[in-house]
This record gives sequence, structure tokens and C-alpha cells, in this order.
Amino acid sequence: MLGNFSYCNPTKLYFGDDSLKFLKDELNNYGDNVLLVYGGGSIKKNGIYDEVVAILKAAGKNVAEVAGVMPNPTIHKLNEGVAIAKAHQTDLILAVGGGSVCDYCKALSVSVNYDGDPWQKYYINFEEPDCETLPVGCILTMAGTGSEMNAGSVITFPEKKLKIGHVFADEKIMPRFSILNPKYTLTLPHYQMVAGIYDIFNHICEQYFSDEDDSTTDYIAEGLMRSVIHSSRIANENPQDYEARSNIMWSATWALNTLLKKGKTTDWMVHMLGQAAGAVTDATHGMTLAAVSLPYYRHILPYGTAKFKRFAENVWNVNPDGKTDMQVAEEGLQAMESWMKELGLAMHLSELGAREDMLPDIANATLILNSGYKVLTKDEVMQILKESL
Amino acid sequence: MLGNFSYCNPTKLYFGDDSLKFLKDELNNYGDNVLLVYGGGSIKKNGIYDEVVAILKAAGKNVAEVAGVMPNPTIHKLNEGVAIAKAHQTDLILAVGGGSVCDYCKALSVSVNYDGDPWQKYYINFEEPDCETLPVGCILTMAGTGSEMNAGSVITFPEKKLKIGHVFADEKIMPRFSILNPKYTLTLPHYQMVAGIYDIFNHICEQYFSDEDDSTTDYIAEGLMRSVIHSSRIANENPQDYEARSNIMWSATWALNTLLKKGKTTDWMVHMLGQAAGAVTDATHGMTLAAVSLPYYRHILPYGTAKFKRFAENVWNVNPDGKTDMQVAEEGLQAMESWMKELGLAMHLSELGAREDMLPDIANATLILNSGYKVLTKDEVMQILKESL
Repeated sequence: MLGNFSYCNPTKLYFGDDSLKFLKDELNNYGDNVLLVYGGGSIKKNGIYDEVVAILKAAGKNVAEVAGVMPNPTIHKLNEGVAIAKAHQTDLILAVGGGSVCDYCKALSVSVNYDGDPWQKYYINFEEPDCETLPVGCILTMAGTGSEMNAGSVITFPEKKLKIGHVFADEKIMPRFSILNPKYTLTLPHYQMVAGIYDIFNHICEQYFSDEDDSTTDYIAEGLMRSVIHSSRIANENPQDYEARSNIMWSATWALNTLLKKGKTTDWMVHMLGQAAGAVTDATHGMTLAAVSLPYYRHILPYGTAKFKRFAENVWNVNPDGKTDMQVAEEGLQAMESWMKELGLAMHLSELGAREDMLPDIANATLILNSGYKVLTKDEVMQILKESL
Repeated sequence: MLGNFSYCNPTKLYFGDDSLKFLKDELNNYGDNVLLVYGGGSIKKNGIYDEVVAILKAAGKNVAEVAGVMPNPTIHKLNEGVAIAKAHQTDLILAVGGGSVCDYCKALSVSVNYDGDPWQKYYINFEEPDCETLPVGCILTMAGTGSEMNAGSVITFPEKKLKIGHVFADEKIMPRFSILNPKYTLTLPHYQMVAGIYDIFNHICEQYFSDEDDSTTDYIAEGLMRSVIHSSRIANENPQDYEARSNIMWSATWALNTLLKKGKTTDWMVHMLGQAAGAVTDATHGMTLAAVSLPYYRHILPYGTAKFKRFAENVWNVNPDGKTDMQVAEEGLQAMESWMKELGLAMHLSELGAREDMLPDIANATLILNSGYKVLTKDEVMQILKESL
């Protein structure tokens, strides 16, 4: 049953190895004060920073900077950025980086003109902004989160061991434009590349493993999953394969730009478990998802067998002849496991710095959603985390 | 190879059996003068007209009307509408109908403030508008053309036997909003339903059968084709199945809202042949496409065998074991042929009123595109039309 919904995603995308040249035109749509936001400095090493700054200068922009946005951007870093953005009277926030930088910029967008505590308002109360928001543009340097074409923003409060995402309702909080150059992703370490690939794949899974219907949405999801599997195998062998990396980048955008949830319910428990592990260990997002996925999916398999069977057949080409539904479904998860190992993903939380004594903290930080094939109990969360260790 | 491109599709979609209730909110975004445009009057029989007019009146709008937009809207009807729209000082053009009405409204959008001949400018010279364009909103009553979320517009010049489509470059010419209520499609005659379904399927084919790469775009196309095949079989058995009809409606939108052509080349020769047949016979669009498709695809099969083999395996589940590529590819087309016959589509142009003596006219009206696996000669066009008769 394709339920009722609305869809609007106005983000303008420029895709390809020449896409940065369109930044100049986009800058004409905004005022003079640009806040340039980036991460740990890799864009200074690979030259992207210099290219972007040259374009900003040529356009006559006044540029202020927020540097050092961390992989799990903190509320403290957000507060620091709000002060800089205010002092600069920012007209456009320009994110140059991966999903973390882009998420951070959306958090800035809704916080600069808000006088209260953004953590409480947006990440605890999940309220929508009632202040004026600032436009965000994005130059993406890593494929994975889909943050370049959605209104989601994940922020971490390290002292509280909380990492919480808010998907804002207003499409104005989506980046107004995003520049997607697959070449920028070629210099990423293999570890970051495969973590991003699994993040993409899991975004699709989170929206796919819910409902048992025949919606068009799920057929699109299957196409995207097949594409990610295919291109990831090529990129794993040869990370410099531009075609594979470009397909991965494009899949990432469509995996989480709201299309795959239209007309259906979603799950998102792998992200809840993984984000909790990330808040406690500060491990790479995609790797935390990888480590908890199979224990979680095997746990919910009996409650959603029909969909896992369909996943096995339509995504992994499992031949169902002469097998029970459960056997077909389990073969699909085995195929997924082989692929994950082939990519070199983290298959255990212990590989990511987690120890048994941290599990209660991770379990406590896990938001249990009322979604998917089985709403977990606290005990089940702990059991899945133990199996993931 | 996923080539360079930009993507922007800001159309706001309201989908579902309650979607008309959002019209009220959308009307707030436009001035008081609304031009209501519709077709042959079926919306008066099924009550949609009364519902829409009541909402317009309650919102205090001044409404003028263009009624009687025909299935292949003519340039003469366009000129008539331009005069009405001008006299009404139109702020919003509201299409209530299928793709023809929506196409017509986009033609109005670019013509009302243009002083010259829109046929020459937009449909012969394929120029972009340099005048101010009017916003279009759409209430869709038939699934098929995808016109509800793109900037395409097909207009016919009957005396010249020409039916020509222009996909405008500016996303402002896309409908600003579209209301998609699958219930509105339930009252369509079976013939119109299956013609729409084939139109959808062929839109996907036109963008799929070009290039031989591994692009994400083609994987999404395969997912959409599988969904259309699945839901069409259910709707063919039971046209009142809301779930199937809703999936068909949603597939139609994504089949032709620009996503499936991103990063790749396209074909579109089936549409060129079918539109020429439509201009000469005035037959239903989707049926003309059905009648010419298999002769065309079998003709180009030797030039694109690898893609037709992939189509057979990924869309029609053809088992390739022990078969040549050509055999696998041909089995895919046979599966497609069986499905088309199952739906009751026109398999010959003669079923649509075409006679052998009309074929030279149809051939002359066929625009030969420099695209796809084989650029046709004039002789090949004639040969395919003979095989389609």
C-alpha cells in the first residue's frame, strides 16, 4: 500500500568532474557574506580549499571560516560556529566536506537566528525552527550520508554520550545547491570509502525493511542496492575507477533524499544502535552500522521473513527453488555478509574500540523507535549489542 | 560512465486519496486570477470539476476556463487559450486532467507573454522562452505521461501532420505543484489505463536503451520497470485495485521527471515513430508507442545486444544459462511481447486506423534522432513502419 505523502526536493545538483565551475553562478543568488565551513584540513592538502577560495574571492565575497568540524560534530562546535556566523552577518553557509560538515551547516542554518539552546530545541524536543534560517550550499568531498540533498542533521553531545539526528520538515533547510564531483572522493582512504559505501547501503535497508507490500518505492530501493553492490566491488578492487566512484556518489544521494521513504514506513534501528555506539566510541559512522547490522537483521528476520526473502531474490539473486522462505531469506543475509567481508567492513564493535563494559552505556544511548518488523525491548537491544561485540 | 549533468526538480507533489485538500494551501502562493484548464468534460461527470471549483471559489479566486483540450492538443487550441489567459490577466494556470492538459498548460505558460508564433519558436526552433512565464499547477486524473513533474510539452499541428515535443530547460516551467490522487484514475476505461501503462513503460525504455554502462540510473530504471510490470498485471485483472493504481501513478512520475536520463544518453525513437503515427491517425499516444515498439527494438537489437540481454535478465528474469547473448536478448523481448498482449495493447498500427497508404506520411512526419544504438535511415523508418502495420 503506497500511503499518502508529499514530496518536494528542490536542491539543485551539479554532478561530474567539472561541477565546481557552477559555484560561480550559484554565488550570484546570495549576499556577500559567505561562511566557509570545513573539517580537519584534508581540503587544504588536496587543493579543493584553494580552488573554492579563489572562486569566492573572484566573486567578491567576504569570507569567514569555521574550520575543524569533526566527524561527529558536537553541540559545542555548533555553538562556536553560531557565534562566528552571527558576527559575520552570514548570507550563505558553504559546506566543503562530507556528511558531517554538511549536517553541521544545516544545524547552523537553524541555530544562528535562534536565541535559545539549539540542542534542547532541535535534538531533544525535535521542534522545527521558528526563526529565519540561512541558506546552505554544499561542495561534497565524500559519498555516503546523503546530507547533500536532504534536511537531516546529526549532532553529538559527547558528555551526555548522545548522537541524535533530526530530519527537518521544511525543504528550505535542504542545501539550496550541492556540487558533487566524484574526483574529490578518489583520495579518500579505503577505510573511509567502504564505510561510506556501507552507510549508503544501510540507508536503503533502513527504508526497505519495513512493510510487506509491493510499492514502487521498494522496487527503486532494490535497483539502488544492486547498483551499490555492483559499483562497490569495482571500487574495492580499484578505488581510482571514476565510473564506479561516480555511481556510488549518485546512489548515495538517492539513498537518502526522502524518495525511498515515500508512501511507506521505515525502520532506522541500525542507525539508532550504530549512532549510540558512535557516541560512546567516536568510531566512524558507517563502520558502527556495519558492526550491528547482521545481528540486528538476523534478530528481526522471523518477523519480516517475506521481505527478507524478497531481498534475497531481488537484490542477491538467490534462487528460491526447493527452499523454505526462511532458508531463502537467510541465504540473502549470508550473501550480504560475504559482500561486507569482501569490502573489509567492521563486522564487530570490538574492532571499533568498544569493550563489553561499554555496552550498557551504548544500550542506554540507543533510542528505541516504534518502527520496523519488531519493536525492540531494552533486553533485545542489549542482546543485539552483545552479538555485535 | 555516469556523465556530467545538473539536476533540479522543485515540483511539489501531493500524493494519495486525500491530496486535493492541499490545493487550498497552494492557492495562497498565487494571485487571484486562475485559469482552469481541462479536457473533454469527464471531470464534470466524475465530480472532480465541482470539487475543484468549490475550492477555488472558497479561496476567493476569479476563475476563467479553457475547456475541451483534446488528447493531442493543437496549436490552434493553444492560440485560443493564449487569448483567454491574456484577457484574464492570469496569475496561475491550473491543469485538471491527464498529460495532454498538463502539456497544453505548459505551452500556455511560455506563450501567453510571447508576442510571436509559439509553434515556430518552441516546436520548430526549440528555443527557450525569453518572456515571463506563468506558473502551472496540476491536478492529475490519468497516469502515464509524467507531465506532472517535468518541463515537457507536446503540441500537434494537424494540418501539417506534425506532433512535436519540447522539453524546456528551465525548471520554472515544470508544474509548481501537482496533486496526484490515484482514485481519479480508477474511472478510466481499460483502454486508456493500459495505454497509459505502456506510455510509462516506454518512457523508461527510451532512456534505458542507450549506452552499455553500469550507471546507477539504469539500475533505478530496472526497478521502475519491474514495478510497472508487477502492478500492471494486478490492475489489468482488477482495475479497481487502489494499491496497484497508486504504484502505477507513482512510477509514471518517476519514469519521466528527468531522473532516468541523468548521466547517460537516451533513445526516444519509439516516441518519434509513435508521435508521427499519432499526428496522422489521431490515435491514443500509448497505443501508437505499443504498435511500433517491438519492430523497432528487434531492428536495433543487433546494435545493442548487451543491453537487451541485461534487460532480459534484470527485468524479465530470463535465465541466461546455456544461451547465446542474442538468444537471451530475444527471450526478453518475447517476454515483453507476452506482457503487452496480456494487457491488450495495440500490437499493430492497423488497429489504430493506419493504412498502408498513410505510411509515407507517417515516415515523413518521423523526426529521426541522432541517438540510441543505431541512427535510422529513412528506409529503415519505412521498414519499421511496415513491420508495425
